[in-house]
Amino acid sequence: MLSTMQDVPLLISRILTHGSTIHGTSQVTTWTGEDEPHRRSFAEIGARAAQLAHALRDDLGVTGDERVATLAWNNAEHVEAYFAIPSMGAVLHTLNLRLPPEQLAWIVNHAADRVIIANGSLLPLLAPLLPHLKPVEHVVVTGPGDRSLLDGAAVRVHEYEDLIAGKPTSYDWPELDERQAAAMCYTSGTTGDPKGVVYSHRSVYLHSMQVNMAQSMGLTDEDTSLVVVPQFHVNAWGLPHATFMTGVNMLMPDRFLQPAPLAAMIESERPTHAAAVPTIWQGLLAELTANPRDVSSLGQVTIGGSACPPSLMEAFDKLGMRVCHAWGMTETSPLGTIARPPAGVAAGTDEEFAYRLTQGRFPAGVEGRLTGPGGERLPWDGESAGELEVRGPWIAGAYYNGPDDEPLRPADKFSEDGWLKTGDVGTISADGYLTLTDRAKDVIKSGGEWISSVELENALMSHPDVAEAAVVAVPDDKWGERPLATVVLKEGSTATFDTLRTFLADEGKIAKWQLPERWTIVEAVPKTSVGKFDKKVLRRQYAEGELDVTSL
Amino acid sequence: MLSTMQDVPLLISRILTHGSTIHGTSQVTTWTGEDEPHRRSFAEIGARAAQLAHALRDDLGVTGDERVATLAWNNAEHVEAYFAIPSMGAVLHTLNLRLPPEQLAWIVNHAADRVIIANGSLLPLLAPLLPHLKPVEHVVVTGPGDRSLLDGAAVRVHEYEDLIAGKPTSYDWPELDERQAAAMCYTSGTTGDPKGVVYSHRSVYLHSMQVNMAQSMGLTDEDTSLVVVPQFHVNAWGLPHATFMTGVNMLMPDRFLQPAPLAAMIESERPTHAAAVPTIWQGLLAELTANPRDVSSLGQVTIGGSACPPSLMEAFDKLGMRVCHAWGMTETSPLGTIARPPAGVAAGTDEEFAYRLTQGRFPAGVEGRLTGPGGERLPWDGESAGELEVRGPWIAGAYYNGPDDEPLRPADKFSEDGWLKTGDVGTISADGYLTLTDRAKDVIKSGGEWISSVELENALMSHPDVAEAAVVAVPDDKWGERPLATVVLKEGSTATFDTLRTFLADEGKIAKWQLPERWTIVEAVPKTSVGKFDKKVLRRQYAEGELDVTSL
Repeated sequence: MLSTMQDVPLLISRILTHGSTIHGTSQVTTWTGEDEPHRRSFAEIGARAAQLAHALRDDLGVTGDERVATLAWNNAEHVEAYFAIPSMGAVLHTLNLRLPPEQLAWIVNHAADRVIIANGSLLPLLAPLLPHLKPVEHVVVTGPGDRSLLDGAAVRVHEYEDLIAGKPTSYDWPELDERQAAAMCYTSGTTGDPKGVVYSHRSVYLHSMQVNMAQSMGLTDEDTSLVVVPQFHVNAWGLPHATFMTGVNMLMPDRFLQPAPLAAMIESERPTHAAAVPTIWQGLLAELTANPRDVSSLGQVTIGGSACPPSLMEAFDKLGMRVCHAWGMTETSPLGTIARPPAGVAAGTDEEFAYRLTQGRFPAGVEGRLTGPGGERLPWDGESAGELEVRGPWIAGAYYNGPDDEPLRPADKFSEDGWLKTGDVGTISADGYLTLTDRAKDVIKSGGEWISSVELENALMSHPDVAEAAVVAVPDDKWGERPLATVVLKEGSTATFDTLRTFLADEGKIAKWQLPERWTIVEAVPKTSVGKFDKKVLRRQYAEGELDVTSL
Repeated sequence: MLSTMQDVPLLISRILTHGSTIHGTSQVTTWTGEDEPHRRSFAEIGARAAQLAHALRDDLGVTGDERVATLAWNNAEHVEAYFAIPSMGAVLHTLNLRLPPEQLAWIVNHAADRVIIANGSLLPLLAPLLPHLKPVEHVVVTGPGDRSLLDGAAVRVHEYEDLIAGKPTSYDWPELDERQAAAMCYTSGTTGDPKGVVYSHRSVYLHSMQVNMAQSMGLTDEDTSLVVVPQFHVNAWGLPHATFMTGVNMLMPDRFLQPAPLAAMIESERPTHAAAVPTIWQGLLAELTANPRDVSSLGQVTIGGSACPPSLMEAFDKLGMRVCHAWGMTETSPLGTIARPPAGVAAGTDEEFAYRLTQGRFPAGVEGRLTGPGGERLPWDGESAGELEVRGPWIAGAYYNGPDDEPLRPADKFSEDGWLKTGDVGTISADGYLTLTDRAKDVIKSGGEWISSVELENALMSHPDVAEAAVVAVPDDKWGERPLATVVLKEGSTATFDTLRTFLADEGKIAKWQLPERWTIVEAVPKTSVGKFDKKVLRRQYAEGELDVTSL
């Protein structure tokens, strides 16, 4: 039986039109590092997005679902690109400017980007890369920066403002299939080439609605959101789209992501909401401790990207900035869980704090399940640890594999029934709260049970004589895998492996079967370029007999 | 270019599963008129909805997209039917128990309902109707009421609780097409037969997300919503679905819609939100004035169905219950506009009050335009008045025309490009606020229900003594509007208003609540140049006291 509802596709152009008319006076404020930030209304953004689309089509020949890349900070022009490119039917490809140049080049070539819209301030990064970007024909430059860096490049260079000047301020946005590609973002895994996640108009639209639900971030046109999370990072967590749906003002830091300017813009612009990874907030906290500012406007701070340390949450609470933990990844658009404590749990209690430190609950639209080492479904009992798998209309079901190939569905990333394997290991409580404990690749699979390396490391590092500790899985004839404890002792320590093992069992509250038998002392734990433990190196060193291992 | 997102349909079963797991402890509380209301958790609702689906399929043979009707007040069992029926792939058909019996019968026959789930308290209405309901084979009875009224009926009668007892508490909900029919609701227009609006899983899902956005009603699991608007009225404005998305508790009044029990349930259950038509609130206000109660929990009151009188909004403000005006209709699921004042307008000012009295702004997902008398698009200038047309994924694009026929798209209800012609006339301000000023047709909005003036006129004119009759809406303190019957009697007639009124009820088959109280006799009905009744003149004459009106 047919429904009699209108068949209206969920398109990003509809979000743009809504925001620039119903919420036309809402503003995007871009920090300039000078006295006055730059302000542009949603109505102006709408008009300029139309102009940009005309320029891309008429002057640069962008047609069909071509990719148009951006290499840009968070600012008003990047918001215009966010709306113009998908609305005209092309695909917005945000380039992560923090990737190694070789990876950036690989990604641009893989996506076949013919046009790049770049901030002038990022030309020092782009210029030396250009000779390696084969498909790129046009570079459109916005904002301050030395254009001469592009002299002699084998591309056509355009000034953004010149390009859009005089173009019509409206555009007859095409009625696209809502499942068509709208935007893409590559994720660089630990192994292999970067993988492209391609968002659809539908997924962006639904994700934006979810973000706006009162049970999620729940912002209104009375709010201003400080969008620190980069626009080249999973659609800035969906905030540019979500804000245009509801008229939330955006405060954009551009390239001024250092603690001092962030503190200054919070004090002067008084945002009510902010979103960023913990590292940013750690820096801001230190800054505020050294140079106190009035940051009391910030009622809600969304933290994601990695777990928020309890000490940071406590410190922010004291400053009147309430942290809300969320979990997601490039493949989840990203909102996957959000840690609002359940109704009825009193504010300020230990119980509430514990809920806030979890990754949170799945919002409507996201389904989650835990899969054990043998592929079995695990109960939501707060104890059974398994790999988190998720499903939903804004969750990836494949990766992009270039213009002509089939999408990639590697078996370690997608289940047979199409769920995303997140690679995160954790538990889910009976009331639906997710607690992530480890990455699947770092977990120790011992006799059909999983042992969390992170849990062992945290327990070890809570011993007063331990400076650092890393735990990795090593092969074991009987159990499949067992943990190897790699310890850096503090200077002058006389702790033995036996005392550490006893400490784990007693103070660390580690189950007996999880206690490591294999121990080694090292000078320092090997680290990756971003400072994380490099467990691949430890595993290789063990395999090649380079470590001095004691068995208890 | 293909997106790499999962293709997960938006289904009501997903809302049910989400609510009954993530928000399993949230509650549906049903008023019983006794000391203790009845309480059922979302988890229990989920289990019982599964049991109901098994019973409908296994015992009553419901398959495919068959319609299953409900004749019920707002209560937990009706919520179970709301979820079970669409989730299993069938179509929920809510019957408006306030319609005249003949219309109800017509509707049941048109929809081909084979099963009716009925409240025991409504059997006095259903029993005499049953012989006229040709397709009905099964009646499932819930709650208190005299079953013997169904003795001798040519249908199988089932006790709801017996039917679902022992059935499995989970159901492998089918993966349906999200555009499939989920629920239907007939609207009785001004002319012709009632018309069926058929909601899809997609439209219900998207509408629920919109209702939950902070910029709309914006409720969370800390809220309790008093759902006065009937479940047989446009899905109770989407609240049962929206609440299951976010864990909002529901307080259901069942048949206790009188002011005294409503005041009692607000005082004792302390809902934070309520939704109803103005007439309900007028009654409640009178009750609270006579018998003061603590109703301070009610922070937000959504009023729709017809315009909220300013005096009512003011009175509620004084009681600490903040009214939020919304506009919609059966064809719009219903949320079409919502009157949140724009950011920056100070609370408590005349400016703010004026915004709150408008119908409000279109939420994301609804597009609106004004069409002038000549079919031209009118500007949003707050002055140009035209018929409101709307478009969106939860807006009807056709009417249902029975199991085998094509959907109906009458030209007076749908534009050539597929927009819904709402039949409402008004203006839109530059900042997007809709103000409705008139009806395209002269429908009388009485207590949130429509009374067709044409139908009353036709019924009146079928009386042998009546030469002409025109019916217009006149203001009424209690009901918003009521019909004024203007009659031209044939020469020599001795008919009285009482006999005409009795005639309407008996021969004219007009529902009792639709019968006019105000009557006047005129020499001739004023006519326009093309010979149509000139109702503007009548309304002016009434307003200026030029008519000799008798009240019955």
